[in-house]
Amino acid sequence: METTTEKTTTTQEVADRFYELAQQGKFDQIQDELYDENVRSVEPAHSNWQNVQGIDKIKEKAKQWQEMTEEMHGGYTGKPQVAGNFFSCVMGMDVTIKGQGRVKMDEIAVYEVKDGKIVLEHFFF
Amino acid sequence: METTTEKTTTTQEVADRFYELAQQGKFDQIQDELYDENVRSVEPAHSNWQNVQGIDKIKEKAKQWQEMTEEMHGGYTGKPQVAGNFFSCVMGMDVTIKGQGRVKMDEIAVYEVKDGKIVLEHFFF
Repeated sequence: METTTEKTTTTQEVADRFYELAQQGKFDQIQDELYDENVRSVEPAHSNWQNVQGIDKIKEKAKQWQEMTEEMHGGYTGKPQVAGNFFSCVMGMDVTIKGQGRVKMDEIAVYEVKDGKIVLEHFFF
Repeated sequence: METTTEKTTTTQEVADRFYELAQQGKFDQIQDELYDENVRSVEPAHSNWQNVQGIDKIKEKAKQWQEMTEEMHGGYTGKPQVAGNFFSCVMGMDVTIKGQGRVKMDEIAVYEVKDGKIVLEHFFF
């Protein structure tokens, strides 16, 4: 944990750190380091994933996803674009899901930052 | 109106045309040319704007906005990022609103494309 710093982390700084960690595939660390305790996760209406709130529930989703995954063949995260308290990026993966075969997915992710932490992730696919 | 073409316009092509028109400030033409008749518009919960559906209602919003605007000092639209059937871009403006003074606004806009037309605009600010 950081001690109190002189200024609040800006959205650009959070986006930069997000991008840095994403390039290294450290999505768990993104959640641990950048997500607010009360973060909300919003999925498309057609998705099998539920909208949830709270870092524990989001980590549970990540665990479920990991258990569904047979093999990850590749993935990418584009450079975030920042506007006000939000940033967005394109993301994608090439993955074999247990019992479903190999699929390629692309999505847009929008993140809201408040007091230096991500308080919303909203996915479009 | 175009006659039937050999292939469906792709999301990338719609995004490119969107960007071209946005750079020229032709937002009315974006609606006329690229928006689907049943397009949905989604605003943040805290916004004074309602979520609406239908090109007529979206054009009504544009007209209301124009009437609220005293002077547009500047604005920008970033280059779209495309993922699957979606594209997103950052947008902003520097505007004097009647009775409210001069404000700078930045937002992220996400657009969904179906059969070569924009069927959803979703704003984050």
